[in-house]
Amino acid sequence: MEKVDHIGIAVKSLEDSLDYYIHTLGLKLLGIEEVPQQHVKVAFLDAGNIKLELLEPMSDEGAVASFLEKRGEGVHHIAFGVRNIKERMEELKTQGVRLLQDEPKKGAGGAEVAFLHPKSSFGVLYELCAKRSLGDE
Amino acid sequence: MEKVDHIGIAVKSLEDSLDYYIHTLGLKLLGIEEVPQQHVKVAFLDAGNIKLELLEPMSDEGAVASFLEKRGEGVHHIAFGVRNIKERMEELKTQGVRLLQDEPKKGAGGAEVAFLHPKSSFGVLYELCAKRSLGDE
Repeated sequence: MEKVDHIGIAVKSLEDSLDYYIHTLGLKLLGIEEVPQQHVKVAFLDAGNIKLELLEPMSDEGAVASFLEKRGEGVHHIAFGVRNIKERMEELKTQGVRLLQDEPKKGAGGAEVAFLHPKSSFGVLYELCAKRSLGDE
Repeated sequence: MEKVDHIGIAVKSLEDSLDYYIHTLGLKLLGIEEVPQQHVKVAFLDAGNIKLELLEPMSDEGAVASFLEKRGEGVHHIAFGVRNIKERMEELKTQGVRLLQDEPKKGAGGAEVAFLHPKSSFGVLYELCAKRSLGDE
C-alpha cells in the first residue's frame, strides 16, 4: 500500500469552515472543485505532507450527505494513493476485503477512486485513489 | 501549523485489527506501547509519509473507551506535529479555539500532547503533538 494522499472531512459548509482551516490552523487552500458524480463540493488544503479534503454535500443525495445526517461533521475517510487501482482492488478482494464498488469511480482532481467497506477495515472508510499523471504532483 | 504526524484510530482490539493493517493493507508495524495516562495501548504503523496510531482502551476509563462506546470503531483524531506546544496552545486560545486541557499531557512515544475541542474544529478532534528530540525521527 502506498502512502496516505489525503484525509476526507465532511463539513456542512465550506464557507463556514474554511476560515478556521486557513486562518486559525494556518493551512494553505489549494483549490475548490465540484465533483457532481459524488454530490460534493471539495476544498483541498495543504497539510504539509498530506492534504485535507473538506467535503460539502451539493444536495441531500450521496454518501457525504448521509454521513452528515447520521454522524454529523467529522472525519469521513482516509485515502491511500495507489498506482494501479484495478490491480489493488483485485488483490484486496482476493484477501477477503469488501469493496463499495466493483469499478473505480471518478473523484476530485480527475482521480480514480474506490472505497473499502468500513466493516472490512475496523470502522474506517479507506479510499484508494489513483491520480492522473497530467497536471498532478 | 506544522504537518500531520499521525491519525489516531480507535479499535476494540489491537490483536484483532493489526493483522488487517499489516498483512492486508501492507503497513509496517513500528511498535506497540502502553500509555497508562491516556488509558490506552497503542500500535504505530508506518503509512509512508505519516503514521497510523491504533488505540485500544486498557480499561473502561478514558476518552478512547467512551468514543468506542458512543461511536464504535473508527478515526478518533488527527495529530499535527508542532515545535512549541505551549506557544501554539496560547495562539489558538487567543484565536478563540477551545482546548480540552490547559497544560500539555503525556502521550505515546514520550510526546507532549493537547487536544482541540471538536466543537471548535467542525467536528474533528485535532491533537497537537510535540515530540521529544531524543530517540525520535
